[in-house]
Amino acid sequence: MKSFASDNTSRVHPKIMESIVNANLDNAKSYGYDEYTLRAENKFKELFGEDIDVYFVYNGTAANVLGLSSMINTYNAIICSEWAHINTDECGAPEKNIGCKIISIPSSDGKIKTEDISKYLFAIGIEHHSQPKVISITQSTELGTVYTKEEIKDIADFAHKNNMYLHMDGARIANAACCLNLDVKEFTKDAGVDVLSFGGTKNGMMFGEAVLFFNKKLSEGFKYRRKQYMQLHSKMRYISVQFETLLSDELYIKNAKNANEMAKYLEVRLREIPNIAITQRVEANAIFASLPREVIDKLLEKYYFYIWNEDKNEVRWMTSFDTTKEEIDEFVEDIKKIIK
Amino acid sequence: MKSFASDNTSRVHPKIMESIVNANLDNAKSYGYDEYTLRAENKFKELFGEDIDVYFVYNGTAANVLGLSSMINTYNAIICSEWAHINTDECGAPEKNIGCKIISIPSSDGKIKTEDISKYLFAIGIEHHSQPKVISITQSTELGTVYTKEEIKDIADFAHKNNMYLHMDGARIANAACCLNLDVKEFTKDAGVDVLSFGGTKNGMMFGEAVLFFNKKLSEGFKYRRKQYMQLHSKMRYISVQFETLLSDELYIKNAKNANEMAKYLEVRLREIPNIAITQRVEANAIFASLPREVIDKLLEKYYFYIWNEDKNEVRWMTSFDTTKEEIDEFVEDIKKIIK
Amino acid sequence: MKSFASDNTSRVHPKIMESIVNANLDNAKSYGYDEYTLRAENKFKELFGEDIDVYFVYNGTAANVLGLSSMINTYNAIICSEWAHINTDECGAPEKNIGCKIISIPSSDGKIKTEDISKYLFAIGIEHHSQPKVISITQSTELGTVYTKEEIKDIADFAHKNNMYLHMDGARIANAACCLNLDVKEFTKDAGVDVLSFGGTKNGMMFGEAVLFFNKKLSEGFKYRRKQYMQLHSKMRYISVQFETLLSDELYIKNAKNANEMAKYLEVRLREIPNIAITQRVEANAIFASLPREVIDKLLEKYYFYIWNEDKNEVRWMTSFDTTKEEIDEFVEDIKKIIK
Amino acid sequence: MKSFASDNTSRVHPKIMESIVNANLDNAKSYGYDEYTLRAENKFKELFGEDIDVYFVYNGTAANVLGLSSMINTYNAIICSEWAHINTDECGAPEKNIGCKIISIPSSDGKIKTEDISKYLFAIGIEHHSQPKVISITQSTELGTVYTKEEIKDIADFAHKNNMYLHMDGARIANAACCLNLDVKEFTKDAGVDVLSFGGTKNGMMFGEAVLFFNKKLSEGFKYRRKQYMQLHSKMRYISVQFETLLSDELYIKNAKNANEMAKYLEVRLREIPNIAITQRVEANAIFASLPREVIDKLLEKYYFYIWNEDKNEVRWMTSFDTTKEEIDEFVEDIKKIIK
Repeated sequence: MKSFASDNTSRVHPKIMESIVNANLDNAKSYGYDEYTLRAENKFKELFGEDIDVYFVYNGTAANVLGLSSMINTYNAIICSEWAHINTDECGAPEKNIGCKIISIPSSDGKIKTEDISKYLFAIGIEHHSQPKVISITQSTELGTVYTKEEIKDIADFAHKNNMYLHMDGARIANAACCLNLDVKEFTKDAGVDVLSFGGTKNGMMFGEAVLFFNKKLSEGFKYRRKQYMQLHSKMRYISVQFETLLSDELYIKNAKNANEMAKYLEVRLREIPNIAITQRVEANAIFASLPREVIDKLLEKYYFYIWNEDKNEVRWMTSFDTTKEEIDEFVEDIKKIIK
Repeated sequence: MKSFASDNTSRVHPKIMESIVNANLDNAKSYGYDEYTLRAENKFKELFGEDIDVYFVYNGTAANVLGLSSMINTYNAIICSEWAHINTDECGAPEKNIGCKIISIPSSDGKIKTEDISKYLFAIGIEHHSQPKVISITQSTELGTVYTKEEIKDIADFAHKNNMYLHMDGARIANAACCLNLDVKEFTKDAGVDVLSFGGTKNGMMFGEAVLFFNKKLSEGFKYRRKQYMQLHSKMRYISVQFETLLSDELYIKNAKNANEMAKYLEVRLREIPNIAITQRVEANAIFASLPREVIDKLLEKYYFYIWNEDKNEVRWMTSFDTTKEEIDEFVEDIKKIIK
Repeated sequence: MKSFASDNTSRVHPKIMESIVNANLDNAKSYGYDEYTLRAENKFKELFGEDIDVYFVYNGTAANVLGLSSMINTYNAIICSEWAHINTDECGAPEKNIGCKIISIPSSDGKIKTEDISKYLFAIGIEHHSQPKVISITQSTELGTVYTKEEIKDIADFAHKNNMYLHMDGARIANAACCLNLDVKEFTKDAGVDVLSFGGTKNGMMFGEAVLFFNKKLSEGFKYRRKQYMQLHSKMRYISVQFETLLSDELYIKNAKNANEMAKYLEVRLREIPNIAITQRVEANAIFASLPREVIDKLLEKYYFYIWNEDKNEVRWMTSFDTTKEEIDEFVEDIKKIIK
Repeated sequence: MKSFASDNTSRVHPKIMESIVNANLDNAKSYGYDEYTLRAENKFKELFGEDIDVYFVYNGTAANVLGLSSMINTYNAIICSEWAHINTDECGAPEKNIGCKIISIPSSDGKIKTEDISKYLFAIGIEHHSQPKVISITQSTELGTVYTKEEIKDIADFAHKNNMYLHMDGARIANAACCLNLDVKEFTKDAGVDVLSFGGTKNGMMFGEAVLFFNKKLSEGFKYRRKQYMQLHSKMRYISVQFETLLSDELYIKNAKNANEMAKYLEVRLREIPNIAITQRVEANAIFASLPREVIDKLLEKYYFYIWNEDKNEVRWMTSFDTTKEEIDEFVEDIKKIIK
């Protein structure tokens, strides 16, 4: 059954799989003290500069939680969009593992702005209230939209002016880079992001995400934190070699580019169909659309995807590095057939 | 550099790697709702019976911590050997993630006995003291020894009589099965173990461990726990297919058998050398030995392994599924040369 | 400086102070194993029936957090009003100490209704989302309003039908009882509340709150929890004797009655003044009012109280067991003078 | 029933009770923003110097846990004696509330030495192991012994040399001061202690302990921590006024002096009895003694105290600020009668 449910229903990119197989030689030091890990870290330093710290963890929830935990105390609050993965899709992992409060801000497109954030800072200095200390934004957002470089810089400046940090959940950061047509460094480190979750799994890897510290003083003790939070992989080379491959020959960009282009192509094709409304801007690799419920139900017999909002008959379709034009065409034809 | 440091410096078993490559087809449902996961769970049920619950997590620390967290409250204590991985090698993960106390019992061979455990139950019912609720044993132990079926049954009976549970850290459970020449079920579920961490990574897998609930009432809510503790893999099929392969054609036994035999062979060869004392019984795939410090230092130039106890010049050498007789012979010859 | 800031700026009721002094004789068993504690527990059983469990803790935040922690797992969510003390005034204590998520519902009067709550149950059974397990309501609310018995029963039934529990933050429960003119049992235990924080400090005590379990299976292990959460007082008799006195001769009702009546009287007097708008129903011992900012600033020179909402020039004035008509009259005259 | 169980079975010192009654006037600002709290803090500054931070909490467990939590991360370990209150008598509060590991060192007299501590530092820098970051000592110890100023200085220097901190549990610090005949500052702040729990409850107060930061950089954010850890008292003046009284006219010293002298006197009288062995040095207000079990059982019919070690027939008797010579004499006579 073909899936448009998520980019994590895709397989592993063949080049990445090949590199894993090639790394399967003899012994290697465990826990990241191997050659593959050194090379993968260097790949990140080529992208972002030498003055960063790089740590690999298993999954995106962990990348977010561990990064955030290094930025705040338990009595602090994280400010984010109501749609943020950390707020809605991690089963309370930040609250459990950090012990902090999450303050979520209403948002129509998944993005938050400084004028909204500023309303939540009234309690600074009063001990009865969790103290906001970090703003977390997702790039590209959970609603498929993308922050511009200027928007990010604006939030970063606001954060730093208010003695706060900026965290970015970059589970789909390559999709944002493609959309913006910018180097990832320009809208992250250069824009003032302090800590970044750099996504791997949703962009063609088997497992593994990276936590990047652009503000290096925040990484103190992180190696202990990673171990204690159960995120230190013993056979680390098998994460590292994937990142090495992903960051070589711009594979991470190529993968995201295909995903984005297929989303755009799907959007264009969908606009041919009158009964379907596209409900969010298509800037990365997600399409949100509302369509008649009976069409949705019929479609679900052949395709795997999520209903996003039952009340609005809104669905989310995601494309991936390996989505093809043919699959999109067939999908659209199937929708048309059903509607007829 | 050849490693005798740990079984986690080994590569992935070729058959397991092959199965991963073969699983890399098209889409699959994420988060464990795929066919591979179903098949892998069934493999475990073939081994242990239908009435068990099976969950996959990323690593051994997580398997232990998540399993234990489902057995106790924060005000409880875990009783284990002073050498237990949960006590010494998880950077305080149980304390952080469960919030409980660990009571560690001195042990000369890594094993604990009911007469030792009973000394720590004096405070049952008194609210000033953490309440012991689970006994955790490691099989095979961190010192390379193996509990007999009877010893395990004895501890399980003691635990249950005292309103406690028995947890087993089976990171190297296949090595124990080979040593005991028993089916894994006989000295785990049949002996009274309530929750088992079934090891994968140290026995030829790339990543992934299983938490098995023989006492099914303890697994309530575990799927939420796994997500919140950041251990739910999105592309789950890549863990599942490894377990499916590991449990097929007794590969897990074959792998462990080679590791154990190579440890035995190393022991035999080492006994040829007068300056070396074997300091623990060799029952699984670890050899503990003390030898002159200058020999250790010389060896470390060519081989990778850990000094276990600096004061006693004691080292730990571990064998793995892919250790060969030739490697052992060369290693022993190198030691002999150095000693000369 | 006279305070209308909170009922916790008041002194201790003289009868309660007298009982403390009288309890200061010789030795008494510590940690609650004394006669005073037994008698205080019995007072609660007279009020609520024999089949309850009673525990004393230091303050209201602890009463809420410890009660709630006994009702849920870390992967659960608490549903409450956006104004709930547990959501806004405990500096993230529930998140830190329980590890759970709080889902807060917008509310104009501090109360929540089942039709609002039901919107937050869509994710039941899906492991990516914190699982709602307890509804927490405050009686009287943080906005000075009071749930009717029927409203509470409605929420309790809804909770139980959905496999959830009902928690009540009764920091000002006596004020609610006075407003409703009901025995406290009728709108708590009889209405389906599972666990109740019964307030002492805000109603004339020096320190101490009670956690009452009407659903006794939830109190399992609570004595250990109280100790571990740092809420077991060694010289317990000094909390207990206060509760014994508070619950004798209906002192808790008399205290609350005066507070409520003074709030009502203040409301009546304020309605004489055209520039002041009462912004919430006055049902307990709080008055919310908006008035010109320069009047507020002038008043703050002589009186101590909080500005509730800077944007709306809204203030909160609270009355207490020892507020007098004369104080209200003087306060109102001062306002009138300022306005002129 | 007369108690020698603990100094917390005693009543409140009459002068302290009187000061509480006298503070019961009209309104006072809550949460510590009152005059009493300012005066109490100043009393501490008179004792220890202006450059300290002072915070009041409810009880000794909280003073220890909150102080320690401000000194370490979750991945750190606390090193203390096996007898330490934080290790044995707080039901796992440090593990739960801080999330760290406790490393307990065997000790025959409740004290630890740098040569013992140094054995536990082997894993510094290795991420598999909790990282020791604070040494916690109890003064006077749980076994009634007292560290000398030099011993404390030695441990403080060792701690600081190893990039660690020194914490002191001073639940009975006044008893230590009396024993040493030193100002409390000399063997705490001057000796290198970083954070001190200064006990009140066991020395004649009703409730309340102080956390003193001599190393002020450690107190950052402590006011939020106190609130979040549920230890901020609303009617703070009633803790503060007790401390003000306790520190006035050296009442804290006078109280401790009586307790210590009565312990000494009891020791002298007990030495008259051949069947009784004093098992620890009597330096503060505790006496540990072993005597025939049948004598213990008979005594327990008239007196309240704890059996410390069932196997050794060892009991603990504690004296207090209000223990009298007559009570001791009667107690000793009763023992003599029983033995006969």
